[in-house]
Amino acid sequence: MVRRQDFDTGLNQLRELLIKMGNRMDEALKEAIESLKASDLNKANEVIRKDAELNALEEEILELGSQLIITQQPVAKDLRRIIVAFKISSDLERMGDLARDIARVTVRLDGQAPVKPLIDIPHMAEIASTMIAESIRSYMDENTDLAYKMAKDDDEVDELYGAMLRELYAVLLEKPESAPQMMLLQMVGRYIERIADHATNIGENVVFLVTGRRPDLNS
Amino acid sequence: MVRRQDFDTGLNQLRELLIKMGNRMDEALKEAIESLKASDLNKANEVIRKDAELNALEEEILELGSQLIITQQPVAKDLRRIIVAFKISSDLERMGDLARDIARVTVRLDGQAPVKPLIDIPHMAEIASTMIAESIRSYMDENTDLAYKMAKDDDEVDELYGAMLRELYAVLLEKPESAPQMMLLQMVGRYIERIADHATNIGENVVFLVTGRRPDLNS
Repeated sequence: MVRRQDFDTGLNQLRELLIKMGNRMDEALKEAIESLKASDLNKANEVIRKDAELNALEEEILELGSQLIITQQPVAKDLRRIIVAFKISSDLERMGDLARDIARVTVRLDGQAPVKPLIDIPHMAEIASTMIAESIRSYMDENTDLAYKMAKDDDEVDELYGAMLRELYAVLLEKPESAPQMMLLQMVGRYIERIADHATNIGENVVFLVTGRRPDLNS
Repeated sequence: MVRRQDFDTGLNQLRELLIKMGNRMDEALKEAIESLKASDLNKANEVIRKDAELNALEEEILELGSQLIITQQPVAKDLRRIIVAFKISSDLERMGDLARDIARVTVRLDGQAPVKPLIDIPHMAEIASTMIAESIRSYMDENTDLAYKMAKDDDEVDELYGAMLRELYAVLLEKPESAPQMMLLQMVGRYIERIADHATNIGENVVFLVTGRRPDLNS
């Protein structure tokens, strides 16, 4: 019984680290988008600087999870709980890289006023932000319904991205001189789309945790 | 000693599965690009159909790796060998999804002749293909030099993608009616770029395997 208690304590610590990582990631995304909207170079550089924290958290998760496996020898679902925590931390680390890449676009725009007001991008980022929270929640609660809901949110982000591309092309045909800025904004759309993909991935891993089978929700 | 031998046998099986998954993924990418070049809908549908095999291989790896952890209780580097195999299989599964997405573009183009000959896309795909082979090799040989080389290959793919985008924009300004096709080709460039990112990720995990520390090569 002592062993079970030790395992649960360790697992809770692991979950705390994942929550922290998810919150940090969500913050990074929100700040990156704010920096873009406000052409705020200081904020953008802050996001870039803080990316190292997410990498450090991934390492902590790998370390703590490995220790748990070694000392507690979990099997079946308990083992999957740890394996899935590893997989989620990989996704969150990559999502953090993408938030940093968005902040880098702010830096490259270097205070340039946007050719058109940013509407689709903040909207896509909002959905992605919801998905980040849902992905962590689905792991905590081992809730597969949420995982499947995320696949639908992901489709919405993909559709918004498509709409955004069509609009960028229209602006481009009208104002060809805006091409460099349009390309940068298109990249931001792409980064958010990828963040949403990673959240969907987390959902797939939660389904694996609960069922032992790995679905393909990115289809 | 018997235990060590059992572990090595299991680890070799795990490696075989990863090699198989890497080869399958590389095949999928090559066939998807061929289907695009030749407007070959049959080949494209074949790639889409075969994606399920990659998902099944990821599950096999999760199962075998979990069994190894449970029965052999590996520690330190041996445990990392299995954790990293899990992480690599996630990346390969996602890379397979992206090859399938390329094949879907062939289907959506539905036999349309390309507005311009495909040059950058096959070139990007070739580098990505090399990276897939290198990523598996770096895991097998626990070779961190290869992992760092991949980060450079990834930069090359990113540059080619940037050049390709600029060319697509130029074609677009000249022939605005080509916009739908240009958007589809741009998506293919994006998918290949992501495949290369995942290969870089595999490299990061190999560095973790060898050193116990997780670098950030996607920067």
